[in-house]
Amino acid sequence: MNREQLVSQIKSKKSFLCVGLDTDLEKIPSFLLAEEDPIFEFNKRIIDVTKEYAVAYKPNIAFYECLGASGWKSLKRTLDYIPNECFTIADAKRGDIGNTAARYAKTFFDKSAAGLDFDSITIAPYMGEDSVTPFLKEGKWAILLALTSNPGSNDFQQLKVKEENKLFEEVITTSRQWADSSQLMFVVGATRGEAIAEVRKLANDNFFLVPGIGAQGGSLEEVVKYGMTSDCGLLINSSRGIIYAGSDKNFDVAAGEEAKKIQTKMADFLTEYKIM
Amino acid sequence: MNREQLVSQIKSKKSFLCVGLDTDLEKIPSFLLAEEDPIFEFNKRIIDVTKEYAVAYKPNIAFYECLGASGWKSLKRTLDYIPNECFTIADAKRGDIGNTAARYAKTFFDKSAAGLDFDSITIAPYMGEDSVTPFLKEGKWAILLALTSNPGSNDFQQLKVKEENKLFEEVITTSRQWADSSQLMFVVGATRGEAIAEVRKLANDNFFLVPGIGAQGGSLEEVVKYGMTSDCGLLINSSRGIIYAGSDKNFDVAAGEEAKKIQTKMADFLTEYKIM
Repeated sequence: MNREQLVSQIKSKKSFLCVGLDTDLEKIPSFLLAEEDPIFEFNKRIIDVTKEYAVAYKPNIAFYECLGASGWKSLKRTLDYIPNECFTIADAKRGDIGNTAARYAKTFFDKSAAGLDFDSITIAPYMGEDSVTPFLKEGKWAILLALTSNPGSNDFQQLKVKEENKLFEEVITTSRQWADSSQLMFVVGATRGEAIAEVRKLANDNFFLVPGIGAQGGSLEEVVKYGMTSDCGLLINSSRGIIYAGSDKNFDVAAGEEAKKIQTKMADFLTEYKIM
Repeated sequence: MNREQLVSQIKSKKSFLCVGLDTDLEKIPSFLLAEEDPIFEFNKRIIDVTKEYAVAYKPNIAFYECLGASGWKSLKRTLDYIPNECFTIADAKRGDIGNTAARYAKTFFDKSAAGLDFDSITIAPYMGEDSVTPFLKEGKWAILLALTSNPGSNDFQQLKVKEENKLFEEVITTSRQWADSSQLMFVVGATRGEAIAEVRKLANDNFFLVPGIGAQGGSLEEVVKYGMTSDCGLLINSSRGIIYAGSDKNFDVAAGEEAKKIQTKMADFLTEYKIM
């Protein structure tokens, strides 16, 4: 999916919501465990009720991988079920030398390999350029970890490098030489309101994938205030806050209501900032 | 597997060789493609002829993942086939926030989840402490990327931080506060002989997993000279140089000879450095 298609979807749905599919057998309603593929059944019902409000879906690959071969089948069925107009993100945080990165690109982008054809993948930058460029296929996106929202993000990302920059800033300025904003996004955690403004200065036109709204405590308003661009430039993810909003037979109704609540706020921001 | 068991195996096999199983349908002998599970059949024959000379096996997870569910089955069969005394490494380079890292730990360490019970996993450090500690289960190892051997390793790993250290040095000194050398190894590329000496100064008693011998051009002699400790402290990986040494019906014989050649040199070094 290219940038125009993504922006067009944001405008038509009046939303920049990404739903994180961190689907966990221990957390989904127990009546689903009787199904042949409970993970897929849960995702299917979540997608049915949120697709009107969400422009993107982000399966967290760890939650599928930990079920082995059957998890990969559920992942493939889920991806096939996501409507074509939605942007899809493999939240895999891969990163390896060139020939291995090429293999990961094949895994997540080439349907003839593992049956998957995501639009994008999250990538860890530690190994540098040749670990990122194999993902820059036509119509595909690399979403590079820049400033994450977890406690450990203070360990290295905030270190001063070259006497003035911080490491995450260097990751942004360096990687922007590898690809333009039609293929390169950054992960920027929502738990650091003003930090988003700093990142926006360095990456004026890249989309940001922003986790940390909801369960991790980030504020939608702050993210918009500091991060929004003239074509939105934001995909804001909520995982647990939406998919586990309810826990009974009507869990999907609760999830849909939660997604609608966020989308309604997003529509207001899109109007306020004159994106539409 | 604990450190004593690993060192004991190094002494009894007179080897610190790790065989990298980067098994690729496009590179294995074509007659194997007629088998029901060509990846496993190839690995099985490689393991049969190298297990006398190798103390560790390192499947590169990308090569299995890109085959989807069937790749995960081949990976599981391969892991089950590796002899118990050998140290096993999931070369997965994972790294994510705490709750997701816990999921990846389950994937690779907990047989009841995805059927896999590796001894160790490679991890990208960018997301810091909470992305690493979930892997520190009893008897399991985290192998943290420090200084890698690819071109992109110059992009960030060599950046000066805190005015004097380089990022990879900071990764080493910081992460050594999270776990002791009975559970924490570092990836240190062999293509940088003297850099290994610098890393050894910072991590005097950690094992190093050293890729880059063979196809990537690193020298075994230099790695030993700069990196060996009193209980060896090295696992040196060769992937393509061994597993693709031959390409016909007797590919396994060629692989075994190549492994034996390396092991013979290693035995000499172990004697020269009085490890045995």
